[in-house]
Amino acid sequence: MSRIICVGLGPGDPDLMSVKAARLLGSVVQVAYFRKAGRRGQARQIVEGLLAPGAAEFPMEYPVTTELDVSDPAYNAALARFYDEWTTKLVQLTRNGDVIVLCEGDPFLYGSFMHLHSRLQGLVPVEVVPGITGMSGCWTATGQPVVWGDDVLSVLPGTLPEQELAKRAMGNDALVFMKIGRNLAKIRRVLAESGRAEAAWLVEHGTMPNQKIARLVDVDDEACPYFAIIIVHGQGRRPEIVA
Amino acid sequence: MSRIICVGLGPGDPDLMSVKAARLLGSVVQVAYFRKAGRRGQARQIVEGLLAPGAAEFPMEYPVTTELDVSDPAYNAALARFYDEWTTKLVQLTRNGDVIVLCEGDPFLYGSFMHLHSRLQGLVPVEVVPGITGMSGCWTATGQPVVWGDDVLSVLPGTLPEQELAKRAMGNDALVFMKIGRNLAKIRRVLAESGRAEAAWLVEHGTMPNQKIARLVDVDDEACPYFAIIIVHGQGRRPEIVA
Repeated sequence: MSRIICVGLGPGDPDLMSVKAARLLGSVVQVAYFRKAGRRGQARQIVEGLLAPGAAEFPMEYPVTTELDVSDPAYNAALARFYDEWTTKLVQLTRNGDVIVLCEGDPFLYGSFMHLHSRLQGLVPVEVVPGITGMSGCWTATGQPVVWGDDVLSVLPGTLPEQELAKRAMGNDALVFMKIGRNLAKIRRVLAESGRAEAAWLVEHGTMPNQKIARLVDVDDEACPYFAIIIVHGQGRRPEIVA
Repeated sequence: MSRIICVGLGPGDPDLMSVKAARLLGSVVQVAYFRKAGRRGQARQIVEGLLAPGAAEFPMEYPVTTELDVSDPAYNAALARFYDEWTTKLVQLTRNGDVIVLCEGDPFLYGSFMHLHSRLQGLVPVEVVPGITGMSGCWTATGQPVVWGDDVLSVLPGTLPEQELAKRAMGNDALVFMKIGRNLAKIRRVLAESGRAEAAWLVEHGTMPNQKIARLVDVDDEACPYFAIIIVHGQGRRPEIVA
């Protein structure tokens, strides 16, 4: 029986996808991927030149991204319908053989595929190939470990309400903010209140040719990609450097 | 000028290392890796059969692992000396060409290489290749997304004091406990107090042939590997499945 295989592509540099991902891309001839309507799609861009010859492509275009607030019932309804429809289509495609679904980063860390994954249970075999997370790519790009010793790492979606974000960003451990975009000013306020603004780094397009790394205090509140990542490194225990 | 390149190997399945990691392993002929004295070493095992022909190997054996408590000054002193000595040796090796340092998972997430990395600054060029984290491998193995929507993900070292762990494990979001081993009973108590014991999964040897996945409540408090991972999945917002 044919499978649906969600392939984590890693943070963006094609060289950072797994050996398994690269092999699947080169051999499976049905390839689906999410994208915003009218865009090329980040996942599709990562695999440029790596798909099997003659592979059939199935772009899955979100019916809505930021036009509606996530709390709007219409947002929820539109996306639920979208995932339902693509569940049906992908199952139909498995009659022809395996289907790959591309996913940036690691599929089970905030990846859209999870909404297909839950719907596909019991219908066809589903496999997920983990990938290097976007945040790993970004903290590696900063050239500093994100956690030391007993540091706790908190991964915070920038979409959370400001008060909730502030509560979670307290303390002295490592922080990673994801889903930035229009949430940048809010995150900046949260970091300022917790006294950590000076220690924060903003990474855009991590591991890609247009990668941009800057201290957050040196960046204007201009347009910032949704997939940018903000990092505050932990400062935990470590064996002293002997002078 | 030759470089020291720390290569993240991913969670354990060699197929899950990056294309870049695999290429470096097959071409660089000086390979160093950490291991406990008298053991083969997990990192070395992952790359079995993948090293360049004739590669020279340099096992870096920890002078102490769990024989001393991390709060014991003797522990700190022994490790500091160990990292200092290997910094010197690795720099010497770069006279012969590039040196790879193997690292399980992702080097900048609790990887021992960070202690060499900080010491090597300004001495020789250093590069770090990110890898799929052990936790990604493990939550993928559970077959469930670790976070949904606005879930916060907290990554908690099991080495933290019980009270601190309990404080950080409150709330309803996703939890990953690392550094398990002899901390298992403590983590179990923390999860029981926060009402999440029933929802916790224990993954040992994630993505490897001897992988073991179980609900934590079904596991006895017997010996558990230090590199096992405990996961409590988030239950955040998602578009409803239409019946």
